[in-house]
Amino acid sequence: MGLALTALSPAPAPPASRGPGAYLRAAAQLVVDEIRRIIPAEGGQESLYGLMLDYPLREAKGLRPALCLATTRALGSPLERAVRTAAVLELYHNAFLIHDDIQDGSALRRGGPTLHRAHGVPIAINVGDAMLALTLSPLLENIQSIGLSRALRVLEAVGRMSQETVEGQALELDWVRRDVWDLEESDYVEMVIKKTGWYSFITPIATGAHVAGASAATVEALSAFARPLSVAFQIRDDVLNLEGALDHYGKEIAGDLWEGKRTVVLLHLIRVASPAEAAEARRILSLGRPDPDAADDAMPALLDELEAAGELGPTARQRIEARLRERGPGPVKTEADVRWLLDAIARHGSLSYASRVGARWGAAARAALEACSFLPDSIHRDFLYDLVDYVCERDR
Amino acid sequence: MGLALTALSPAPAPPASRGPGAYLRAAAQLVVDEIRRIIPAEGGQESLYGLMLDYPLREAKGLRPALCLATTRALGSPLERAVRTAAVLELYHNAFLIHDDIQDGSALRRGGPTLHRAHGVPIAINVGDAMLALTLSPLLENIQSIGLSRALRVLEAVGRMSQETVEGQALELDWVRRDVWDLEESDYVEMVIKKTGWYSFITPIATGAHVAGASAATVEALSAFARPLSVAFQIRDDVLNLEGALDHYGKEIAGDLWEGKRTVVLLHLIRVASPAEAAEARRILSLGRPDPDAADDAMPALLDELEAAGELGPTARQRIEARLRERGPGPVKTEADVRWLLDAIARHGSLSYASRVGARWGAAARAALEACSFLPDSIHRDFLYDLVDYVCERDR
Repeated sequence: MGLALTALSPAPAPPASRGPGAYLRAAAQLVVDEIRRIIPAEGGQESLYGLMLDYPLREAKGLRPALCLATTRALGSPLERAVRTAAVLELYHNAFLIHDDIQDGSALRRGGPTLHRAHGVPIAINVGDAMLALTLSPLLENIQSIGLSRALRVLEAVGRMSQETVEGQALELDWVRRDVWDLEESDYVEMVIKKTGWYSFITPIATGAHVAGASAATVEALSAFARPLSVAFQIRDDVLNLEGALDHYGKEIAGDLWEGKRTVVLLHLIRVASPAEAAEARRILSLGRPDPDAADDAMPALLDELEAAGELGPTARQRIEARLRERGPGPVKTEADVRWLLDAIARHGSLSYASRVGARWGAAARAALEACSFLPDSIHRDFLYDLVDYVCERDR
Repeated sequence: MGLALTALSPAPAPPASRGPGAYLRAAAQLVVDEIRRIIPAEGGQESLYGLMLDYPLREAKGLRPALCLATTRALGSPLERAVRTAAVLELYHNAFLIHDDIQDGSALRRGGPTLHRAHGVPIAINVGDAMLALTLSPLLENIQSIGLSRALRVLEAVGRMSQETVEGQALELDWVRRDVWDLEESDYVEMVIKKTGWYSFITPIATGAHVAGASAATVEALSAFARPLSVAFQIRDDVLNLEGALDHYGKEIAGDLWEGKRTVVLLHLIRVASPAEAAEARRILSLGRPDPDAADDAMPALLDELEAAGELGPTARQRIEARLRERGPGPVKTEADVRWLLDAIARHGSLSYASRVGARWGAAARAALEACSFLPDSIHRDFLYDLVDYVCERDR
């Protein structure tokens, strides 16, 4: 914990490098240590509790715990009081990631296979549920360490956060299921604040403030900073997902296009494109994502061979292939489809449009932070300022 | 709420029929009404909150809320104090069912399609998560209605319950994934108490007692009743799943055999069968369950037609079918396999053995309830006694 305490210490030994990197890493490490303490050590459950450490031990940004710890420290309260709450937020974050990866059919997470790819959907669902189950006890222990009133406000904030998150998830899943694309940017913003903003920014900052015994007015002023920052963060995420793809046209890189995620980029494209282009974009986006597990790479070769040997009549191959397609998961996007979308995005400047929108949200966040004049000068307040730049400019 | 208050009223108007049926129905109705109050009414989330009522509105036993309410009432506290807690337990129950149905690949639940069959896995995962998310707020409201100390004991009990449940689920999923069958009956009992006992019996009864302000000794005496009752309940469930199948050999009926669930019945069969029989049983049980969605019922007919038209050569059909089988979910059980298991179970008397084991756990529960001499005579105590018979003798 030496490094962590240096970076987060009250006596401001300035971080070695510019930017929030050291602060984020220190927070991530503190919280992994705390999660190890929260997870029961009892025998016979290695398969459950071992897997609970899988995602947290992969390289994580440490964003949520850092926001919680920095807010507590910036308001003058000791670090120790917030560590347990920060660890609970990281458990929620990882539980949401595990379930979200199943819901989106994602293959990769933080440089490795997603949990359900590695261990199957049933076990992955249960590991997510287990993370949620383990959050209640540390939040109740808060009563001893930070007092009843602050502990209850943290509990209420976490309850609100969970509800907002599942509502945001429901909005997005519903759009996908009903193939809804006639959305305003304000619909996107509402979804993002619910699905990502509450658990990534609003609640980490609000609970950090509750731990420090902040007034309702202070919490609201800080939340007015957290909300636009979360939108700026997600828009930067959306842009990053596509930026590399303009060079690479890679399947893993433009994952949002393969998944058909609603983003400021795509909403702009559909809004400014010609009716014919918009229709083509929507046609492509409504197609499913190819499932690498479902593809039968060997069947075409077998049919080639049978055809060459004269074992297939003139219509047999065609009809068998048509039947196989009907049994598949429905029509799916091709590389050419995704390339068409990327070209259209470039043609209409949708990526730079989204960047400009993101920058405006970032500026709103900075203004809201400047309005928090009650925060004294400290490395923790500096971290919050650094984070605004980081959120808007990061390249991973 | 009229009927409910009659059946659960302090002035003991005796229930119209023998047995716990009216009491269970009244509790189920009270709790559905309370769940409606817990679910937010705000607009734009019909697809989430509408689906949250799907399982609770299907005919449920009302077992968990009835146990909670009856314990509170049997200890002399008013009904109203326990209703919110009973509703939270029912939300947990339904969240576990939704996720469990996905994990087991179940097709039917309470006479209708499972939630993930009707709305897809992503939405079903989120509806389960939403139920869990909505439990925190009512448990915090308990502080106002039943006082801080009792409310905190309920919160701690619910936290413990969640943890035990995911541990039980992990045990069973791990046995399935690693194809483990060399289990003692005590392993089964440990798994059942964790996976089902804590959320179905131990915690409903313990929280009912906490709501009434019971002492630790009272809670422990009641838990000593709840634990064996939960084992008797699950063994009866296992027996019921197979009893009808001996007549019908039906696929839906012997679902536990198709799924390969570890039960007292199957552990007995493997223990007492000859080595060759035990090996055959384990071979069958390690096979997967056929996925009705994966079967291509139209392909054989197409191949018949092409064969009749002379479009398929002598080896073409055979090789195409072999290729299709390789792409399937691996070897699966057949009706003949399941029939073999049912015959072996009948031959070795494993069903009546399991019934005798279940009866012993029921007797232990009855003795533990008799030891709760602190419970005064009331219709609520009568209900607990009736429930022992119901659990051991029910036919659904």
